[in-house]
Amino acid sequence: MKVGIVQIDSAFGEIQKNVEKALSHMASHAADLWVLPELFNTGYQFISKEEAAKLAEAVPEGPTTQALIREAKRAKTHIVAGIAERSGRKIYNASVLVGPKGFIAVYRKLHLFYEEKRWFTPGNLPFKIENISYPSPKGGRMTARIGMMICFDWIFPESARSLALLGADILCHPSNLVLTHCPDAMVTRCLENRVFALTANRVGTETRGKEKLTYIGKSQITSPRGQVLYRAAEKKEAVWVQEIDPKEARNKQINAYNNLLTDRKTRFYR
Amino acid sequence: MKVGIVQIDSAFGEIQKNVEKALSHMASHAADLWVLPELFNTGYQFISKEEAAKLAEAVPEGPTTQALIREAKRAKTHIVAGIAERSGRKIYNASVLVGPKGFIAVYRKLHLFYEEKRWFTPGNLPFKIENISYPSPKGGRMTARIGMMICFDWIFPESARSLALLGADILCHPSNLVLTHCPDAMVTRCLENRVFALTANRVGTETRGKEKLTYIGKSQITSPRGQVLYRAAEKKEAVWVQEIDPKEARNKQINAYNNLLTDRKTRFYR
Repeated sequence: MKVGIVQIDSAFGEIQKNVEKALSHMASHAADLWVLPELFNTGYQFISKEEAAKLAEAVPEGPTTQALIREAKRAKTHIVAGIAERSGRKIYNASVLVGPKGFIAVYRKLHLFYEEKRWFTPGNLPFKIENISYPSPKGGRMTARIGMMICFDWIFPESARSLALLGADILCHPSNLVLTHCPDAMVTRCLENRVFALTANRVGTETRGKEKLTYIGKSQITSPRGQVLYRAAEKKEAVWVQEIDPKEARNKQINAYNNLLTDRKTRFYR
Repeated sequence: MKVGIVQIDSAFGEIQKNVEKALSHMASHAADLWVLPELFNTGYQFISKEEAAKLAEAVPEGPTTQALIREAKRAKTHIVAGIAERSGRKIYNASVLVGPKGFIAVYRKLHLFYEEKRWFTPGNLPFKIENISYPSPKGGRMTARIGMMICFDWIFPESARSLALLGADILCHPSNLVLTHCPDAMVTRCLENRVFALTANRVGTETRGKEKLTYIGKSQITSPRGQVLYRAAEKKEAVWVQEIDPKEARNKQINAYNNLLTDRKTRFYR
């Protein structure tokens, strides 16, 4: 299976321009699954709830999700992308999953970071796994099980763990990282759960109101054995496609005696 | 507070020699809390349950715990040490905590690694926090809250998380690591829980039966901000004392909006 990540700088508020940039990166490579950064279409640092409401879109009717669906149909691919979602009077920091047949799912970030709490409502949907299909090298189709989490969700081990317990092969992880520890921590997340992770981060600096934020790049593809299969540069836009076998994530037995999930001693956990 | 770790090679089955070696390392430095490796007194790689039973000791009556208590009284210190514990007909991979007033607590490893499952019974005691006192630099006494976990417990994020939720300032982590990822993963454990960790590992190679195991050293003191305050060499015995302030682990607020424990969305966790 070919999985790709797109690391871009987004221009705040310029949705059409940002979407076009991401689409052109994806169009230059073939992949069965793409992950784009968090809030890739709007930019990150809102300064009011009204502004967030104005830039947010209904899912799946909004223009960003519709543009992604068109690209997924055209390229016969799947795309996970972070966008601001408007649902009634609430705004969510969300990610959508779309595929060749159209809209598949939305995830709403559970663990909001810093000022996001001022504009977004915390997620109200459970972690969930979606089965997506991709062409087998031997002919026919194979299935990968993917789950979504967004940026700061990484610091709560329960996020990746919940997705692994639900059967995820691949964690799709749109991000706008400003703290430095996440890329290394994703090695731990993948090792402890024996899953792949696709962390698509943004680059660049955004100055909005009093906040100047610099995003750390280093988008990363991490294997179930904790290998960093790809890590992007800190400051440059990047697109990368990696061949992986999602089945590597399915055997949680790490030796003849130990299984990462069935060895859990849940009655002793808080 | 002065915390110390002792990284030694243990000679299989030579309890008295191993205990004397650990005591002499500790006697050469002053600390308020020491952590020794897993199974530091017996060596690691048993080849039969009978052998494990023979080398295991009752806690706190056994000679190793008694020797540690004598040292803790003499040096007015606390010691966490991994030993094989015999309790009735069961053998546990345990760690004891002793202090200037004698025996304090035992923890029995919950997540047994590899062939340990052949000789040891999995732990049957809950994670627990103990308050230990140490002299304040300004006079008087201060309290540190410590919890114990053993080696492979690290790969289950629930271990460190449970101890943090119970209020641990410091994870005391006797280890006999053979896999390479733990020292880096402890950075994630400390960051996600904002706790200190004292990972005391052994060094050397042990050949017993058909198994030849090499221990990776790299004993480590990690801060609540994910800084590696000390990492020992891979192959040499080492003793290290570090000044830390356990109170750094108590404020789980990482910025004005985010708290690592109260931000958890437990109703969405599996």
